[in-house]
Amino acid sequence: MTANTIIAADTRINARWLIPIEPFGAVLDHQAVILQGSRITAVLPQADADQKFRTRETIDLPNHVVLPGLINLHGHTAMSLFRGMADDLPLMTWLNEHIWPAEGRFVCEQFVQDGSRLAMAEMLRTGTTTFSDMYFFPEATAQAAHDTGMRAQVCFPLMDMPTMWGSGPDEYLAKGADLIAQWRGDDFIMPAIGPHAPYTVSDGPLTAAVALSEQTDAAIQIHLHETAFEVEEALKLTGKRPTERMADLGVLGTNSQYVHMTQLNEVDLDLLAKTGGHIVHCPESNLKLASGLCPVQTLIDHGLNVTIGTDGAASNNDLDLFGELKTAAMLAKAVAGDATSLSAHKALEMATLNGARALGRDQELGSLVAGKLADLIAVDLSDPFIQPVYDPASHLVYSNHGRAVSHSWIHGVPQLQDGRLTRIDVPDLMLRVRDWQRHILS
Amino acid sequence: MTANTIIAADTRINARWLIPIEPFGAVLDHQAVILQGSRITAVLPQADADQKFRTRETIDLPNHVVLPGLINLHGHTAMSLFRGMADDLPLMTWLNEHIWPAEGRFVCEQFVQDGSRLAMAEMLRTGTTTFSDMYFFPEATAQAAHDTGMRAQVCFPLMDMPTMWGSGPDEYLAKGADLIAQWRGDDFIMPAIGPHAPYTVSDGPLTAAVALSEQTDAAIQIHLHETAFEVEEALKLTGKRPTERMADLGVLGTNSQYVHMTQLNEVDLDLLAKTGGHIVHCPESNLKLASGLCPVQTLIDHGLNVTIGTDGAASNNDLDLFGELKTAAMLAKAVAGDATSLSAHKALEMATLNGARALGRDQELGSLVAGKLADLIAVDLSDPFIQPVYDPASHLVYSNHGRAVSHSWIHGVPQLQDGRLTRIDVPDLMLRVRDWQRHILS
Repeated sequence: MTANTIIAADTRINARWLIPIEPFGAVLDHQAVILQGSRITAVLPQADADQKFRTRETIDLPNHVVLPGLINLHGHTAMSLFRGMADDLPLMTWLNEHIWPAEGRFVCEQFVQDGSRLAMAEMLRTGTTTFSDMYFFPEATAQAAHDTGMRAQVCFPLMDMPTMWGSGPDEYLAKGADLIAQWRGDDFIMPAIGPHAPYTVSDGPLTAAVALSEQTDAAIQIHLHETAFEVEEALKLTGKRPTERMADLGVLGTNSQYVHMTQLNEVDLDLLAKTGGHIVHCPESNLKLASGLCPVQTLIDHGLNVTIGTDGAASNNDLDLFGELKTAAMLAKAVAGDATSLSAHKALEMATLNGARALGRDQELGSLVAGKLADLIAVDLSDPFIQPVYDPASHLVYSNHGRAVSHSWIHGVPQLQDGRLTRIDVPDLMLRVRDWQRHILS
Repeated sequence: MTANTIIAADTRINARWLIPIEPFGAVLDHQAVILQGSRITAVLPQADADQKFRTRETIDLPNHVVLPGLINLHGHTAMSLFRGMADDLPLMTWLNEHIWPAEGRFVCEQFVQDGSRLAMAEMLRTGTTTFSDMYFFPEATAQAAHDTGMRAQVCFPLMDMPTMWGSGPDEYLAKGADLIAQWRGDDFIMPAIGPHAPYTVSDGPLTAAVALSEQTDAAIQIHLHETAFEVEEALKLTGKRPTERMADLGVLGTNSQYVHMTQLNEVDLDLLAKTGGHIVHCPESNLKLASGLCPVQTLIDHGLNVTIGTDGAASNNDLDLFGELKTAAMLAKAVAGDATSLSAHKALEMATLNGARALGRDQELGSLVAGKLADLIAVDLSDPFIQPVYDPASHLVYSNHGRAVSHSWIHGVPQLQDGRLTRIDVPDLMLRVRDWQRHILS
C-alpha cells in the first residue's frame, strides 16, 4: 500500500449511470463526476473517487443518468410568447397571415427579454444548457442569457426588408457588428450572423455577412433548403439551387450552419461535403409545417456534422429537446428505410458533441471528459411508468420526456435542482407572460 | 321567475375548458360535467349548473381541460416488461432474434398479468381509459383490466405456429371461443379475435375466425400491410395483395380493424372503402421499425375511420397516447405534403370518437354528451413551461406530455386523482416489475 494524495474539489456527483458521449456508446455504472470551479476535474468509478477526492458537497443521484447538457442549435426564443397561436397552416400562410403581422404589432425589446426568459426556463427545465437564437433585438436575448448563465449563440437577423429592429441590411449589419464587438470572446455568449434565408437576403448583404464572419470569426447560421418551393423558386429566379448560390457567395464553410435542409440532391451533397459546414436538423418543425424530410442518414454518410434544433415554440410547439430527439431518431429510420439508422447513442451525440462541434467548442463542451467545462444534466429514470430500464440510452431517447430532467449545471453552477430552476424567478416570469398574453389577445 | 327543480347527482366536475369532441372543434369555457352512476347526466355552463344540480361532490379543475378518455386501439400490453430491451433494429431482426426468443423463454400467465398491469398503470397515468390488446394469455389481460376497471378490447392471438399459449390454430380458436363466451356483453371487456397477420395465418384459420366473428359479433383485429416487404412477399406467394386475400376470405368488414396500413394503392383503398372497416394508425412504431408511412389524409379522404394505437412498449417505447397524437398530427402533414392535414381537433377525434366507432360503441363512448358513459380525463395546463395557452386543443396535441393528465374517471369511477392512481398498487407493481427485470437479465 502506498499513501494516497487526496485532492480537494468543489462538487462530487454520484451517478447511477453515466453517458459521457466520449467514448461513443459508453454507458457506465456508478460513476462520480468531480467539479472544480467551472470545469470537470475527473470522471471515475465511485470507489476510486472515494480514494482520490474530498469535495465540499456531494450530490447523490441513485436513479439518474448523467450526461452532457443538451445543445439546441436552432430557435427563435422570444417566439415562445406566440406558442400555439396559429397551428395547422402551411408555412407561407403561417408566416404571412399570422406570425409576421403579430411580430409587427408586438415585438419590441421588452417582448424579446420576456419571451427569451420564458424559452430559457423551458429549455433549462428540459435539459438544454446551450442554445442558438435568431431573432430581433438580439442584444436583449444575449443579455438575458448572460444574466441567467446559459450559453447561447445569438445570431443577429439579417434580411432585405425593414423590421421593428432596423431599416434594412445596413442597419442590421451595423447593429450586428456592435453585438459581435460587445460579446466576442465571452465564455457564455457567442455572437453570430443570422441571414434569414436565401429568398429574403440579396447578394450584397450576404457578401457583407461573409466579410464580417471572416473579420470576426463569428459563425453564420441560415435557413437553407427548408422547402421544395424555396428550391424551385430559386432555380426560376437565379438559375441556381440555393446551395450553389450560397457557395458562390462564400456563405458555405466550416464556420457556417444550415438549418432544415429538407431538399438535397447530389450537387448539394457534394458542395456541402467539400465546404464542411454544419447541418441543423429540426424534425418537428419540418413535419408540422409540411416542409419536407431531412435525409439525416445520407448527410451522415457524406461525412457531414448533423446537429439538432427545436426551432421556435410557435412551430413545434415546445422546446423539449428530448422530445425532438425521439422524433429525430424515429423519423431518420423511416426516411432512410432502415431501422438501424440514428440509434439512441447517435441521437444523443447529435444533441451534445455534434452541437459543440458546430459552435467550434468541442474542445470544451459536448462530452463529460476531465478538463472540459462543467455543463451537465441528470435525468431521473425512477418514474414507475417507464420501468423496467434495461438501457438508459434507450430510455433517454425513446421513453423519456424532458420533465424527467432533475438537475443541471452550466460552467459548474447549478441551474436546476430537483426540478426547480435556481436562477429564473418563475412566478415573476409567469406574471409577465400573462400580461403579454392579455395584450396579444386584446 | 319560476321555481327551479333541483336535481341531485353524484359528482360535478368544474372544467376551465371542455373539449367535448361532439360538436367537432368545440372548446367551451367554464363548463360543468355532471355524473350520476356510470353516466354523464349533463354538460352545461357552470352558471346554469348552479341553478339545476346539487351533487355529493364537486371537483374544481380551474387550470384544466376536460375531454373524453383516450382510446388506444392497438397494443401488446404485457410487452411493457420488454420496454427498451432491443432498439434500432429492423422489424424481422427485432422479432426473430430478440422479441420471439424472449417471449418463448419468459411469457406465461403471470408475466402477462404483471406486464398488462404495468401497461395499464402507464396508460391510466397518461390519459387512456380504453385500450385494445393482442397477446398470449388474453384471459389474464381481460381479468386484470376488469379488476382495474379499465375498458379493454382483448383480442386472442391466432396464428399457424405453436406458442406458449397453444399448440396451433385449433387450440387458439377453442380457447378464444371460451374467452368470447366468458366476456361477451360485458361493459368493460370486449373479447375479440386477433389473427396476427396475413403472413402468419393461413386461409383455414382465417375462415374460422370470420365464422366466429359472425356467430358472436366479436371484432377482428389484424396487422395488415405493415411493411412493403409483406405486400411484395404476398404477391409472390399468392398472386394477391394482402387486402385482396383478406377480402376474398371475408376478413374485411365493418367489424374489422386493420393495424398499420403503411402500403396502400388504389385497389386497397377501393376494397377498404367498399367494406368499411377501421384503420388503426401506429405512427411511432411505423417510424421506429422503418415499416413505412401510413397515408392518413388519403384514408380520411376515402371516408375511412382512422383510429390510433401506440403498439407495444417494446417498439415505441411508451404508451403515452398524447405523445403518439403529436407524432401522428405532425407526420400526417409531412406525408400529405399539407400542413393543414390532421389538425389538433382531428387528432383528438381520432383518439376518442373514432376509436369508439371502431369498437362499435360510439353511442356510449368517445364524446362528452349527456347520456354517454362517464369515461373522461382532465389535463392540467398550468405547467409554467407550456405557457401561454391560446388554444387548449393545440396544447393537448403539440405542447403536452401525458404526465400532465391529472384526473380520470371510467364508468363514473375515479381512476386518477391529482396524478395518483386509485386502483393500482404502484409500489407492489414495481416490486414485481423489478423481479421480472432481474429474471430476464439473468
